[in-house]
Amino acid sequence: MHVKAFEYMIQNESLPCNVKFMIEGEEEIGSSSLDWFVKRNQEKLSNDVILISDTGMISNKQPSITTGLRGLSYVEVEVTGPNRDLHSGLYGGAVANPINILNKMIASLHDENNHITIPGFYDKVIEATTEERKEMAKAPFSLDEYKKALDINTVYGEEGYTTNERNSIRPTLDVNGIWGGYIGEGAKTVIASKAFAKISMRLVPDQDPDEITEMFTKHFESIAPKSVKVKVTPHHGGHAYVTPIDNIGYKAANKAYTETFGVPAIPQRSGGSIPIVALFEQELKSKTILMGFGLDSDAIHSPNEHFGIFNYLKGIETIPLFYKNYVELYDKI
Amino acid sequence: MHVKAFEYMIQNESLPCNVKFMIEGEEEIGSSSLDWFVKRNQEKLSNDVILISDTGMISNKQPSITTGLRGLSYVEVEVTGPNRDLHSGLYGGAVANPINILNKMIASLHDENNHITIPGFYDKVIEATTEERKEMAKAPFSLDEYKKALDINTVYGEEGYTTNERNSIRPTLDVNGIWGGYIGEGAKTVIASKAFAKISMRLVPDQDPDEITEMFTKHFESIAPKSVKVKVTPHHGGHAYVTPIDNIGYKAANKAYTETFGVPAIPQRSGGSIPIVALFEQELKSKTILMGFGLDSDAIHSPNEHFGIFNYLKGIETIPLFYKNYVELYDKI
Repeated sequence: MHVKAFEYMIQNESLPCNVKFMIEGEEEIGSSSLDWFVKRNQEKLSNDVILISDTGMISNKQPSITTGLRGLSYVEVEVTGPNRDLHSGLYGGAVANPINILNKMIASLHDENNHITIPGFYDKVIEATTEERKEMAKAPFSLDEYKKALDINTVYGEEGYTTNERNSIRPTLDVNGIWGGYIGEGAKTVIASKAFAKISMRLVPDQDPDEITEMFTKHFESIAPKSVKVKVTPHHGGHAYVTPIDNIGYKAANKAYTETFGVPAIPQRSGGSIPIVALFEQELKSKTILMGFGLDSDAIHSPNEHFGIFNYLKGIETIPLFYKNYVELYDKI
Repeated sequence: MHVKAFEYMIQNESLPCNVKFMIEGEEEIGSSSLDWFVKRNQEKLSNDVILISDTGMISNKQPSITTGLRGLSYVEVEVTGPNRDLHSGLYGGAVANPINILNKMIASLHDENNHITIPGFYDKVIEATTEERKEMAKAPFSLDEYKKALDINTVYGEEGYTTNERNSIRPTLDVNGIWGGYIGEGAKTVIASKAFAKISMRLVPDQDPDEITEMFTKHFESIAPKSVKVKVTPHHGGHAYVTPIDNIGYKAANKAYTETFGVPAIPQRSGGSIPIVALFEQELKSKTILMGFGLDSDAIHSPNEHFGIFNYLKGIETIPLFYKNYVELYDKI
């Protein structure tokens, strides 16, 4: 293990700054209490810089710092046709089947170039400049390895953008779950009364999650044929976030990675969402530095999710150096 | 209760003909053993006419005899994208989401007029003549009551056909079940590895269920984008059936209904499927008479399915008269 961090802590019997911990356990269910808590504890939570370790890096040899996160709008939709399940022989062809209708409605949310068709959806999207896209393209990435790791023949996404652009600087619309009718073994000839889907949209600066949820709801209701009723229930959302790389927080983190990995970190935008980051900026006026140690192969949100011991130890080595570097840079201002 | 049937049986201490019973319990799961059984027991099952009581009638005041049944092709489809569930933030927008793809594929199976788009699907469909359609339109039917009973604002189906035509003389394609991704409470930001659907097609004369299943499979595979893999598994099928109304079986049934209900029965084609009927005709060379006593409001294949006591007793009254009438008409030939 790298000794500098421990040397530092042993020699000084402390870190060079105060550290406040904030722990919450609701992130995966939408952090419904977080807004309330942060707004009522601004004094206690006041700080110079925030550190969150919930992101990944390029590889165990190439650290990276996440400088952007996508926002999120998550909704659940319900399509109701007849008031009860029907025999598909006696009614099939003559009444709207809510599953067929839901499929048609969802299919229509992307056009033939995989652009999202909700009116106004892209209005506030800040397009990346040619310069930024050139910078992004420099990050080491093998499309062949990506496809091999996922066992897919080809990637799929919005026309005109690369894979790394599609999953970071572009907004998306994905069905996260769908269900309706008979889903047991064998066959049942039924026309379901209802069909459901969970749909999430990843957002980029400056899309507003509440506005997007409203746009989705209006559009989804407008495309429903008269033969069904639809209901849209918002689940949760969060703003996208982009942090500049010229502040001392970023510099301190980059120096720490350089000391423990031997190479500087590469700034990288992630497609994921950590809604707390935008909330912190809004309420506490503080920038968040995202120092993560996970890998793509960790299979997060998937069976056999894991985190490597190498990465765990590397985090313990690197993070104290961030505090040290931050204080040194802070003192120079 | 009508006494004629009982009088007849009491006076004669028997029916005027032999009756063979064939009981099978696999109909709702596709009758997979039936073909085998019928083909090996042709001698035992040989008969002059077959009676099946598994259909409905117009109302308790207006009996009807089902003269046609739709055939069936039932398949299950599986769409596989990435080899594991993925985090929708990190991969969303960059890989094919199997649920979105399945939705798009299913949506494309109907065109804007609700015609089915599978090449060759309608090739063998026998179009009803203007005369036949005029006859059908005479059956008592209230669209308002139909909509009210199902609590729908409007009906939905193939352009150019009425509700009663759509659910009897026209083939259909309905999703009977769909599932994929996260379907529990709340939200999970996942891109599923797989999505599934159960799809059934109701067929009309002279569509062949095996041919249709093959057409579906070929077409479904052909419309899948390269970014996913698809698998189609046939569940079961059956031929459509139409019986003429000028044979003595139909006449005997109509006379029986007339005696117990006071009015003649109306011939009517049903949208349901009873695959055994086509099998009997093929293997035993016998026509089947469908004398049913159910009502539309019985909610079949739905919660609270039921069968009225009036209808149960009316069946007991009417069916012995069919045997009596049949023998009388048979003796005259």
